[in-house]
Amino acid sequence: MKDFPVSRRQFLKTAALTTAGTTLFGGLVTRMKADEPERKLGFALVGLGILSTQQLAPALQTTKYCRLAAIVTGTPAKAVKWKQQYDIPDKNIYNYDTMDRMIDNPDIDVVYVVTPNALHAEHTIKAARAGKHVLCEKPMEVSTAKCQSMIDECKKAGKQLAIGYRCQFEPYHLECIRLAREKVFGDLRYMEAGFGFAIGNPNQWRLNRALSGGGPLMDVGIYALQATRLVIGEEPVLVSATATNTDPAKFKDIEESLVWSMKFPGGALANCSTTYKFGTMNQFTAFAQNGTFGLKGAFGYGGQQLIRSDGQEMNFPPVDHFAAEMDNFARCILDNKPTKVPGEEGLRDIRIMMAAYESARTGKAVTLA
Amino acid sequence: MKDFPVSRRQFLKTAALTTAGTTLFGGLVTRMKADEPERKLGFALVGLGILSTQQLAPALQTTKYCRLAAIVTGTPAKAVKWKQQYDIPDKNIYNYDTMDRMIDNPDIDVVYVVTPNALHAEHTIKAARAGKHVLCEKPMEVSTAKCQSMIDECKKAGKQLAIGYRCQFEPYHLECIRLAREKVFGDLRYMEAGFGFAIGNPNQWRLNRALSGGGPLMDVGIYALQATRLVIGEEPVLVSATATNTDPAKFKDIEESLVWSMKFPGGALANCSTTYKFGTMNQFTAFAQNGTFGLKGAFGYGGQQLIRSDGQEMNFPPVDHFAAEMDNFARCILDNKPTKVPGEEGLRDIRIMMAAYESARTGKAVTLA
Repeated sequence: MKDFPVSRRQFLKTAALTTAGTTLFGGLVTRMKADEPERKLGFALVGLGILSTQQLAPALQTTKYCRLAAIVTGTPAKAVKWKQQYDIPDKNIYNYDTMDRMIDNPDIDVVYVVTPNALHAEHTIKAARAGKHVLCEKPMEVSTAKCQSMIDECKKAGKQLAIGYRCQFEPYHLECIRLAREKVFGDLRYMEAGFGFAIGNPNQWRLNRALSGGGPLMDVGIYALQATRLVIGEEPVLVSATATNTDPAKFKDIEESLVWSMKFPGGALANCSTTYKFGTMNQFTAFAQNGTFGLKGAFGYGGQQLIRSDGQEMNFPPVDHFAAEMDNFARCILDNKPTKVPGEEGLRDIRIMMAAYESARTGKAVTLA
Repeated sequence: MKDFPVSRRQFLKTAALTTAGTTLFGGLVTRMKADEPERKLGFALVGLGILSTQQLAPALQTTKYCRLAAIVTGTPAKAVKWKQQYDIPDKNIYNYDTMDRMIDNPDIDVVYVVTPNALHAEHTIKAARAGKHVLCEKPMEVSTAKCQSMIDECKKAGKQLAIGYRCQFEPYHLECIRLAREKVFGDLRYMEAGFGFAIGNPNQWRLNRALSGGGPLMDVGIYALQATRLVIGEEPVLVSATATNTDPAKFKDIEESLVWSMKFPGGALANCSTTYKFGTMNQFTAFAQNGTFGLKGAFGYGGQQLIRSDGQEMNFPPVDHFAAEMDNFARCILDNKPTKVPGEEGLRDIRIMMAAYESARTGKAVTLA
């Protein structure tokens, strides 16, 4: 690995490429099959940053139940480029001031909010009021109050709200959850999980607390938190956290690195970690009574590797996490079934992360209701 | 691994046998060579429990600079058995009331204290006052005050005091310390370390706080603490801890499991864990800027496995940790050089562990001077 900061995208991609020796989207190109449904739900991408450009728009070319129907951007040049690249009609191109008008646009079923964290509530609520279902990137928002307002507004509009927890649609995570639920290695006692990377550009919004709501915990630590909660299968009742910052010029008002511990009602414990300082932390391990299991390269866009203490190997075909996530949401909408990653799930993580920040600030463990 | 509690000894041995597929003391039988010194320091073992019986006495048959010269036991039947097995003269057999008389016995150079934790100070001080060097098992004692009294008394007697940190003489640990110091993977940012086992006999002294001073943290968590301090190469400035107890009938006044985090002055963080509930936790990983390294089967009497993120394998010949530890102390005494595991090192760990207990009890992070 490199000893200099890389872009977040490059890191996630590199992790995928090097860990499993397989290309990120290998096997996906040939996925469009004859069993496609006649109607695909129209998705509007709100915020055309790196994630939309590099992951979501390409994924929407492979989804079975979704299609890229519209865009919302504050940058006219991006609108021009995307219009050409994806053949988007002018009537389906919005900016943040005009996106309310989606209410009159039947092409759009789902709005995917991909803007900076602190704008998620604003854009989610606009979409809900325009009568659209909403898929919102993680972290859900920067406060529990804003999360609750998103839940309330979507409920009021009678629309579903899902959070972009792509790993909940990724087979290696699902296998680990199965190993835990079926107690293949006995009762689960302890978990370690960590995700971080060496952040590059010092001017990006992720380093600006007003837009991000926090540092690596909000951005990538949330993956470690999700894995821990999902595999243990309970909600933590106590969280304590410790933060460091060796580069306050770069990390002005966010943590550089943070570790946090959680206690679960069944007696399990967890130690988690996150950082913007280095990129060698990307794994989780579950310690059960009779063995251990977990993932290396756990949180990249691909390249997950399952590690079991009994040495058993298990490989799953590559999956585009974002395509799987969007198709799942589309199916929930088409079938009128609730998503497994609703706003309430996003709120749970925000509540825990806010407790972790409080603990790091006060030096006191925080009890969760 | 088994789903029922095993003895501590059996666990450590099993870990050694199964992890590396090698016998515990393979290669040691042929170690007595022509280059042995004429004079070996005489060791008195104080407390003839499992460690003395299964590890120390056998190790003393292979040491270059030490020999089993004397025993101290409160159980007459053990005295009879050991006298026969190891050909120990009557004059070198003591009980706890008579061990002061060692002052008149030139056969004894070093007293190895292997009694329950809360008796270490008493037996160490008796030995020092009898003019003997002291090697004392970890954890050093059950309070920092008692540790300090041990240091003071040995100093007053002009005798060396060493703590039984066998892993500081174990090549895999030493290699990890080298990888950290030489920054082979760049600056060290974060460590995870954990050690635990499923404790058996509910009546043993380890479960009695009055004798043990605490639970798994004192007994085996100390290995994770040592590894973290040694590899990071700094002393923690902040510790916070969380304990669980799902079996208060068995764990009456000690923790069942405990996790603790530490912050180091250079900005590194650590997450550690220990337990008496399950035996699948026995490893550490160091996360550096450009890669990771650590040990699987880290703390058993053998069977360590070095894991480097660059895939490089490295194997060292089996070493009897206890023989290496005792020979090193004997050489220090013979050469009149200070041990690298003095009482002050033992005291450091006790101070940190007491801070961890305080944090678990109060819910507040504890600042260390």
